[in-house]
Amino acid sequence: MTGAGKPYPAHLSPILIEEAVRAALLEDLGRAGDITSNATIAPDATAKAVLATREVGVLCGMELAQAAFRAIDPGVKFVMKNADGDRIKSGRKVAQISGNARAILAAERVALNYLMRMSGIASYTARFQDLIAHTQAKVCDTRKTIPGHRAFDKYAVKCGGGSNHRFGLDDAILIKDNHIAVCGGVGEAITRARNWAGHLVKVEVEVDTLEQFREALKASPDVVLLDNMGPEMLAEAVAINRAHGGTAKLEASGNVRFETIKAIAETGVDYISTSKITMAAPTLDLGLDIVIG
Amino acid sequence: MTGAGKPYPAHLSPILIEEAVRAALLEDLGRAGDITSNATIAPDATAKAVLATREVGVLCGMELAQAAFRAIDPGVKFVMKNADGDRIKSGRKVAQISGNARAILAAERVALNYLMRMSGIASYTARFQDLIAHTQAKVCDTRKTIPGHRAFDKYAVKCGGGSNHRFGLDDAILIKDNHIAVCGGVGEAITRARNWAGHLVKVEVEVDTLEQFREALKASPDVVLLDNMGPEMLAEAVAINRAHGGTAKLEASGNVRFETIKAIAETGVDYISTSKITMAAPTLDLGLDIVIG
Amino acid sequence: MTGAGKPYPAHLSPILIEEAVRAALLEDLGRAGDITSNATIAPDATAKAVLATREVGVLCGMELAQAAFRAIDPGVKFVMKNADGDRIKSGRKVAQISGNARAILAAERVALNYLMRMSGIASYTARFQDLIAHTQAKVCDTRKTIPGHRAFDKYAVKCGGGSNHRFGLDDAILIKDNHIAVCGGVGEAITRARNWAGHLVKVEVEVDTLEQFREALKASPDVVLLDNMGPEMLAEAVAINRAHGGTAKLEASGNVRFETIKAIAETGVDYISTSKITMAAPTLDLGLDIVIG
Amino acid sequence: MTGAGKPYPAHLSPILIEEAVRAALLEDLGRAGDITSNATIAPDATAKAVLATREVGVLCGMELAQAAFRAIDPGVKFVMKNADGDRIKSGRKVAQISGNARAILAAERVALNYLMRMSGIASYTARFQDLIAHTQAKVCDTRKTIPGHRAFDKYAVKCGGGSNHRFGLDDAILIKDNHIAVCGGVGEAITRARNWAGHLVKVEVEVDTLEQFREALKASPDVVLLDNMGPEMLAEAVAINRAHGGTAKLEASGNVRFETIKAIAETGVDYISTSKITMAAPTLDLGLDIVIG
Amino acid sequence: MTGAGKPYPAHLSPILIEEAVRAALLEDLGRAGDITSNATIAPDATAKAVLATREVGVLCGMELAQAAFRAIDPGVKFVMKNADGDRIKSGRKVAQISGNARAILAAERVALNYLMRMSGIASYTARFQDLIAHTQAKVCDTRKTIPGHRAFDKYAVKCGGGSNHRFGLDDAILIKDNHIAVCGGVGEAITRARNWAGHLVKVEVEVDTLEQFREALKASPDVVLLDNMGPEMLAEAVAINRAHGGTAKLEASGNVRFETIKAIAETGVDYISTSKITMAAPTLDLGLDIVIG
Amino acid sequence: MTGAGKPYPAHLSPILIEEAVRAALLEDLGRAGDITSNATIAPDATAKAVLATREVGVLCGMELAQAAFRAIDPGVKFVMKNADGDRIKSGRKVAQISGNARAILAAERVALNYLMRMSGIASYTARFQDLIAHTQAKVCDTRKTIPGHRAFDKYAVKCGGGSNHRFGLDDAILIKDNHIAVCGGVGEAITRARNWAGHLVKVEVEVDTLEQFREALKASPDVVLLDNMGPEMLAEAVAINRAHGGTAKLEASGNVRFETIKAIAETGVDYISTSKITMAAPTLDLGLDIVIG
Repeated sequence: MTGAGKPYPAHLSPILIEEAVRAALLEDLGRAGDITSNATIAPDATAKAVLATREVGVLCGMELAQAAFRAIDPGVKFVMKNADGDRIKSGRKVAQISGNARAILAAERVALNYLMRMSGIASYTARFQDLIAHTQAKVCDTRKTIPGHRAFDKYAVKCGGGSNHRFGLDDAILIKDNHIAVCGGVGEAITRARNWAGHLVKVEVEVDTLEQFREALKASPDVVLLDNMGPEMLAEAVAINRAHGGTAKLEASGNVRFETIKAIAETGVDYISTSKITMAAPTLDLGLDIVIG
Repeated sequence: MTGAGKPYPAHLSPILIEEAVRAALLEDLGRAGDITSNATIAPDATAKAVLATREVGVLCGMELAQAAFRAIDPGVKFVMKNADGDRIKSGRKVAQISGNARAILAAERVALNYLMRMSGIASYTARFQDLIAHTQAKVCDTRKTIPGHRAFDKYAVKCGGGSNHRFGLDDAILIKDNHIAVCGGVGEAITRARNWAGHLVKVEVEVDTLEQFREALKASPDVVLLDNMGPEMLAEAVAINRAHGGTAKLEASGNVRFETIKAIAETGVDYISTSKITMAAPTLDLGLDIVIG
Repeated sequence: MTGAGKPYPAHLSPILIEEAVRAALLEDLGRAGDITSNATIAPDATAKAVLATREVGVLCGMELAQAAFRAIDPGVKFVMKNADGDRIKSGRKVAQISGNARAILAAERVALNYLMRMSGIASYTARFQDLIAHTQAKVCDTRKTIPGHRAFDKYAVKCGGGSNHRFGLDDAILIKDNHIAVCGGVGEAITRARNWAGHLVKVEVEVDTLEQFREALKASPDVVLLDNMGPEMLAEAVAINRAHGGTAKLEASGNVRFETIKAIAETGVDYISTSKITMAAPTLDLGLDIVIG
Repeated sequence: MTGAGKPYPAHLSPILIEEAVRAALLEDLGRAGDITSNATIAPDATAKAVLATREVGVLCGMELAQAAFRAIDPGVKFVMKNADGDRIKSGRKVAQISGNARAILAAERVALNYLMRMSGIASYTARFQDLIAHTQAKVCDTRKTIPGHRAFDKYAVKCGGGSNHRFGLDDAILIKDNHIAVCGGVGEAITRARNWAGHLVKVEVEVDTLEQFREALKASPDVVLLDNMGPEMLAEAVAINRAHGGTAKLEASGNVRFETIKAIAETGVDYISTSKITMAAPTLDLGLDIVIG
Repeated sequence: MTGAGKPYPAHLSPILIEEAVRAALLEDLGRAGDITSNATIAPDATAKAVLATREVGVLCGMELAQAAFRAIDPGVKFVMKNADGDRIKSGRKVAQISGNARAILAAERVALNYLMRMSGIASYTARFQDLIAHTQAKVCDTRKTIPGHRAFDKYAVKCGGGSNHRFGLDDAILIKDNHIAVCGGVGEAITRARNWAGHLVKVEVEVDTLEQFREALKASPDVVLLDNMGPEMLAEAVAINRAHGGTAKLEASGNVRFETIKAIAETGVDYISTSKITMAAPTLDLGLDIVIG
Repeated sequence: MTGAGKPYPAHLSPILIEEAVRAALLEDLGRAGDITSNATIAPDATAKAVLATREVGVLCGMELAQAAFRAIDPGVKFVMKNADGDRIKSGRKVAQISGNARAILAAERVALNYLMRMSGIASYTARFQDLIAHTQAKVCDTRKTIPGHRAFDKYAVKCGGGSNHRFGLDDAILIKDNHIAVCGGVGEAITRARNWAGHLVKVEVEVDTLEQFREALKASPDVVLLDNMGPEMLAEAVAINRAHGGTAKLEASGNVRFETIKAIAETGVDYISTSKITMAAPTLDLGLDIVIG
């Protein structure tokens, strides 16, 4: 990170958020809307609410939460006290909300469902990343994300200090064993990929032996995914790559856990990818304390 | 369950599945589609694949997986060897897939992402339910679900042997402390709810003291949610309810964990609700082994 | 309605309205827009308009009307003089509108089409409900509504003083003769329904004989639909229910007309359902008088 | 109709039907689907059903009904015994349906809701048209239709023997008093319209006095709408038009009822437009008799 | 254009623009948004920009450009210095834009893509129309437009001084050779069309010989399309039409080029249609010069 | 392209096509459908058609054309005689179509509109690429595409033998002068980009002087865009890059025309990007000859 200031935080375009939040609200409101509040709370009652964490973690999803209240009623005020990516203690009041009571209650669950999942991912990612902060390695995600949440899940990974792998099947090439088998070899597969794709597309290849790795390097892939290798083999791969000019970025995957990630990172690999940060991260507990009247 | 045969399994209408699966595929394919396969695999190559579990658990999401392959190419065959709700050992081959190689690879990730999340929820639910199988109690879900996945998350809970709470803000009334405070009492809140909602709508009220519970019972709610009460207080509530005619269903919530659920269930409550089964369930590992050619 | 204040009026969440109104406007504008106004009225001409009833009735749809003008041009002012649910004389000026002339003319028809239909339903419902105001009975709707208008049709029924039956196939169980036949009996069908559905779901069963009714009561349904029974048989059913503890709500259906509803209500049933209020209600005449310049 | 065979029947493109029917089904199924059938009917049970009229009238909406069953389950067979536009006696079996029992029950209501409304419009239109069959006049619709149903409502009018006015604000010009006032005269308004619109667009102008009518004719509109004139004044307008070369088509509107339409038609006007056929038509009663097993 | 003031300019309803622009932005932003700006520009950096032409032409698309910036960030100011339809020199600064730097860069391409295409069509149309300004003839478009852009393409034609043919298959009848062949003659086809369609629908018929033209005139079509006739034959057709009362509008098509249009127009035809103005118009070059800071 | 077979042709996933084609058909059918055919052609009439080129060029869009007919009526047969990417003479019959006459006529225009535009782009691209076939250089596209057609426009470029630049703002980084200015230098901008983006994202930087180019190379960008440099300066840049190790791909842009591209390519640059192939390509003429009966 030399030669440039502190990187800007992850960013989600508001136009990407609006549609998702609106759909989520409609899912919850169904056909008849919030019948409990409609029955028991006066149409013009107002409320104040405090959004607070109930666990330590990394905050994520504040723009979606804000968008949920605004979509129900543009008159609701949502004052952020913290931003996505902030490391938060338990009990921290991260936002103050005020406005129409029914509106706040109708948006509450959707706002929290986004915040809880996204903060969960960010927090889990941070736990992995913290364990390897002394190395150059970055933990990164995969395409194992919840359908419809790819952009949000990956944004949360970035908020947690992780890095993003490709966002879909279309923005980078990742050659796996089946592709290699069909092409008749790693080198041929990489060459085919280079010849087919445009010059703004990176080519990554997955290998699971050092022999395959050496063969892959000859075809100059941008990235090599070293799958299911132990720390010793990974270290050897790093050395081979260096001897070869070090032009390929190295990504390790397989058996990535809190217990193993330090040893993997210390081998010198550049990236450590794991689906756990998006598929196994428990949600972070946040709550809304509301005072009506 | 006396007086009737074994209940039919949970069911998702295909028309509800199609739209979600199609959106998920478009999210993954992006603008350019599966550029790796397009570059390295012949357009007319065929493949066979086996969908198999890699952990023990409860299978869920098979119709969505099938729909994913069909949406990409109606010519792909997806032969189910198991159905949603089946308890599966690790390594079980749950489906055989054959057809165009590119189509199978393009749909693989979406199919697995659904299967992994939904089987994860079903499996986690089953673990809770198994612990209380000797009681009348059922574990049930909440509205804490991933935005856009409400129907699928709740279907997975049912496949795991759990029961479903309301699906949204509109299909049942759940009166919480804020509503009670505004109405000036539990009884008034319930009466307001009954007067406002139609006769096909159930009214549940949340209480956190036995005093509040007794007051609530006088207004004849359909269900009472006993929040954050220990087993002893729950048992007392069960006794009070019985003395009152036993017309209200009792639901317990708060501090529901593998370690605590048995004691909670043995108090005699009817339902035990927890967001853990949808928000903290780790995904179940499943994989696709593909042979192209 | 004892023990609680006057019920709050029916409520439609604005987020539910916007999408429908926008689609309705696009349907009317087509590809080329309002070519008459574009050809004959200056782009910056302004207009004032008065929205008035031309018949006596119950007003309904004001929020949709307002949303129509706002969707075309947020600068148009729509000042409500009356609210949904108000009983209005013919000639009553219910809103004043002012702003860009083209915008007002472009939104006029959609606003009126909603108002005319929804006020028609509310007015027709009120006529039925007024006839039984001296009883405990409420007139209620069915699932016979215009496709795409379920929420609006049912909201209009509520504005007219009626009550809502279920909103769809998914929010309550209604067991009919075919279900009973397949299950082998009323009791079995109810038990199956209870075992399958969650505890926030009500179970209603349709019967057409008193024998079937007695059998049904044994299985403790939440509601029984007494179909096509005359007043005498209905009165007998009310007596049977009372003798059985009175736990089931009773709903009568069939041959519900202005001429018959009084006698039906006086039998003591709780609800009288009829598709007439949504499918046979003539629209209420409203108009917009516009002054441009 | 000389010089050509019998006109082909009204036609709705299937691609226009599919989207509407799918949305209607999703509205009814909600998030959880048909929980009654899922609870009480075996997944593989089959059923046969007969779709029959319960009133005399003109059938309309059969393609939408068929599409509803097909959308739920392509395996359901829907054999039409009658087609849209057929005049049907009460009790006529218009279609036979067979297939999966749950699928038939899930689609039933949507199919009937379309059929009942569209057959209602067609039947009501036919009643008006029959009264004027001895004249050249045709009853025609307006833009007063239910939002989202413009194409279906107008198709039903055509099936009932009526004719269609413009489908939206964009496919023809209809100059009303406000437009005339702004332009400074009928003639100027028509000229402006002609100069602005393309040569495939017809220009109609609304007048309410014979003086205005005479002035309008000078500017050669394609159609003149004679609003709220009694039979005598209409007859005079017809004579004036004939004297002027008879190039304008004449459309009468206002106070169109079963009692008045004959006299209006006998004045010699070409079209009689009324919103009653789309906004005041009672639905036609049709039902589905199902046998499961 | 006698008897009325200068026609109002072409108009696109904002509600028609919003949806298209939003979809275009989402297409460009993809899943991850504008990663270049997110990486290199501070979130709160501001910028000023000038939108300028780089060629002489007719400006078109300004409302869409404005909508693009507003959709990304309502805080961006877009001050128009020119309006659609203005004839602009190269280098003309047509708008000034200021606000959040990332927002301006994210919307830039979509705004320009609309402006370049629509100004290209308007400019090309104007070149054709200018060549025939001394005649009564108007150049007009066809249904050969880019899918999804029908309304915008035709609006651009109008901004360029051209006229619009029908907007789709549904708003006017155009009888071609196949229809004629099936009906057994031009006259029969026209009669069938008149009998089938409503009275607000114009009927045009395509002919390619004078014999066919004479036959067509007998059935009184609103418009006749004279396809692929040379200037002499067109002049003869004009004379025949005049002799027949001149009630039909005449439209010429085929071989319309800058070199030929003058001769075609001078024959006295009313409209000259060509797909070139929408399908062969080169884009007009416009650019955004941005200063960040 | 050594070490691998001939590259597979460009590929569009059918799921990406369907939605676009369906929207295009609905745009053309409007609310009332193909009223000309409905009026003049019997519902069950059949037709045969031949799809043929009327100019020499490169065919593109056949899958979309096929999808258009299938979407209107799955019974229509569309037999391809040529595939996308084929170089075709004028008059070549590229497909035979048969089935319901109305269906063929209703889909005709949409099918041709796609084919004409996409074949136009492919043909224009091929003309550029042919001129540089003796070099290593490839012509490539930009983000200047028609809104909503990004994927189709870029697919057409590939069918014409060109290569694709990035598909949106999100799949690659392209640093321009404004980004550089804000970051305080080329090197800093590249470093910021690398630090922010994931390892599957390429970084390209635009320079317009050799001094800037030399500075850029030090930061090791994946691609450098040499903007508006003449052949001599480009050749010098190629030499500088080679001396620097040749790791950066070089892309030239600006003043790319049929007359200039040869000289640009012969400088040794790798890619030559131009918006002309998507924004200035005239459509290729294709037509459908239909025989009904």
